[in-house]
Amino acid sequence: MKLNIAVLAGDGIGPEIMKQGVAVMQAIAEKFNHEFTYNEAICGAHAIDEVGDPFPEETFKTCMDADAVLFAAVGDPRFDNNPTAKVRPEQGLLAMRKKLGLFANVRPVATFDCLLHKSPLKDELLKGADFVVIRELTGGMYFGEKYQDNDKAYDTDIYTRPEIERILKVAFEFAMKRNKHLTVVDKANVLASSRLWRQIAKEMEPQYPEVNTDYMFIDNASMRVLTEPTFFDVIVTENTFGDILTDETSCITGSMGLQPSSSLGEHTPLFEPVHGSWPQAAGKNLANPVAQILSAAMLLEHFGLNEEGALIRKAVDASLDANVRTPEIQVEGGAQYGTTEVGEWIVNWIKN
Amino acid sequence: MKLNIAVLAGDGIGPEIMKQGVAVMQAIAEKFNHEFTYNEAICGAHAIDEVGDPFPEETFKTCMDADAVLFAAVGDPRFDNNPTAKVRPEQGLLAMRKKLGLFANVRPVATFDCLLHKSPLKDELLKGADFVVIRELTGGMYFGEKYQDNDKAYDTDIYTRPEIERILKVAFEFAMKRNKHLTVVDKANVLASSRLWRQIAKEMEPQYPEVNTDYMFIDNASMRVLTEPTFFDVIVTENTFGDILTDETSCITGSMGLQPSSSLGEHTPLFEPVHGSWPQAAGKNLANPVAQILSAAMLLEHFGLNEEGALIRKAVDASLDANVRTPEIQVEGGAQYGTTEVGEWIVNWIKN
Ligand SMILES: CC(C)[C@H](C(=O)O)[C@@H](O)C(=O)O
Ligand SMILES: CC(C)[C@H](C(=O)O)[C@@H](O)C(=O)O
Repeated sequence: MKLNIAVLAGDGIGPEIMKQGVAVMQAIAEKFNHEFTYNEAICGAHAIDEVGDPFPEETFKTCMDADAVLFAAVGDPRFDNNPTAKVRPEQGLLAMRKKLGLFANVRPVATFDCLLHKSPLKDELLKGADFVVIRELTGGMYFGEKYQDNDKAYDTDIYTRPEIERILKVAFEFAMKRNKHLTVVDKANVLASSRLWRQIAKEMEPQYPEVNTDYMFIDNASMRVLTEPTFFDVIVTENTFGDILTDETSCITGSMGLQPSSSLGEHTPLFEPVHGSWPQAAGKNLANPVAQILSAAMLLEHFGLNEEGALIRKAVDASLDANVRTPEIQVEGGAQYGTTEVGEWIVNWIKN
Repeated sequence: MKLNIAVLAGDGIGPEIMKQGVAVMQAIAEKFNHEFTYNEAICGAHAIDEVGDPFPEETFKTCMDADAVLFAAVGDPRFDNNPTAKVRPEQGLLAMRKKLGLFANVRPVATFDCLLHKSPLKDELLKGADFVVIRELTGGMYFGEKYQDNDKAYDTDIYTRPEIERILKVAFEFAMKRNKHLTVVDKANVLASSRLWRQIAKEMEPQYPEVNTDYMFIDNASMRVLTEPTFFDVIVTENTFGDILTDETSCITGSMGLQPSSSLGEHTPLFEPVHGSWPQAAGKNLANPVAQILSAAMLLEHFGLNEEGALIRKAVDASLDANVRTPEIQVEGGAQYGTTEVGEWIVNWIKN
């Protein structure tokens, strides 16, 4: 298969982990006789410095011309604590999502038995948890009308029927492919927008009679993912709730550095780690490249290359079993591996 | 001291736990020669049935005439999954908050060493965690302009300067009385309303030079309370984020049935358990009365009756140590005590 990949390494540890992600894709290409081409483009703080725009038109075009985007992370401390700065890396992220129409952010929440002890949750609670959170990514308060002066400020949490229908469709279809249990998370006891979500979900339910659909308020969901994470199969929720809930659910795995995600929508699909740009670690060969590598696996699987994706996952499991791990998940007394060493080990495993 | 208490038992397990809460207050009144009077008033599903209004004018007057409100919980399954019902118990809750001007919801997050094993978090993470979450309770999306038709819906997350200043003042003052560490939780990288919060907090910082103030995005906070709950001293946040975060932080204690809260503001202060009305357990003598009893302790402490509050807390600790516990926190093989038995044990301990 020929795939044209837009490569957006971004800021902080981005370039380091991206290097390993691309190396793994290339190892797969060679092994399976695919032809992957990689087109690098700038974004984030990096792009603000170079051209004054965190998601330049040029980068947008590279993404639109590609079959898929492999993204790392953006963000820089120079822009933190300065949320009122005119141009911020996050704006690039939001522009990217909006312009590429990436309305469905899909985060598989997978646990690794050998890392249960790293989770903040008690091991036995988490064991066997395996669900997907689908976050609406281009609507709600992130993009509704905003206003701010010295005495008053507001944001508008707005959703239209087509926006809700298309994300629920993605969610129902994921549930059909998985264990047929969908949980719609909202705040329908308070919010009008949630009531419309719930109304539309109920209208759509008969189209998916095999799916067991339930409804949960976001405050309850934020507890239930802690007390009974195995309850869930597919969760769907709106943008702001999804921002909070996906971080919470990634965190409980105890292995943020291992969690990939995809963002799907109208144009080119995008694949990225759930973690951020970790600026403090940039250039230190410390960051775990596995989330980036598993993002590459998700990318391949998106195009039906399931054998290829599975091989990457096997290689990652093998690296964990062999204790080839970056410091944050290394066992006590275990040898410490850097970003490069973990990446190269996985590449070699795939080659052999 | 003379105190006129409005007693709102509400729905579900409310009346059962309230009975114990009032009995404990009365035991304190007798021991310390105070004169507490109790005026019962209806609210919630209960009040909808009786007078068609979940927070009737009569109840409002009882609250306004009182020195404090002791509240239990509202909510009934007949109104669940029917968020579009014209009159719902939650509306009574929101009306109560708004009409009493209860803009500051204060939730101490305290752990009990003997209950660490009940927490979803690993014991060692939670040990020593002791912080307070202050949630703005009468603004934001809960009360901003709403609209809903068949094709579109929106809610408005709106805050004015005076609303933000008064809640931040409460938060800074709590921090001064505690360990002088305030964390302002927002989403200032996306929301205009959050940017105004952050701007005002920064303006107020110099008035509290001893307070170490930091800022955290809500998505980070939802993780940090899991990975490092001991980091926090006082957290302050807006209504919707507070709804999610306070439930998450109560849940990690592993003892929701033991967590009290207060809501302070313009008029009569209100004290209530953080848990809900648990309709399934109503009338079964199963519910833990301790959160209600500790809410009474918070009430007394609010009026400077610190010795009285401390005695209640000691009695509760003694009941836990003596394994006089309701089923959800009882140790394996321990005798099972009901709502009444736990309440009576605590009353007797106070008397003796
Ligand atoms: C950086 C920020 C704007 C972004 C968001 O809130 O969507 C991030 O938290 C995320 O979840 O990808
Ligand atoms: C019942 C509901 C309206 C309420 C809220 O969202 O405020 C509840 O969840 C709470 O936290 O007290």
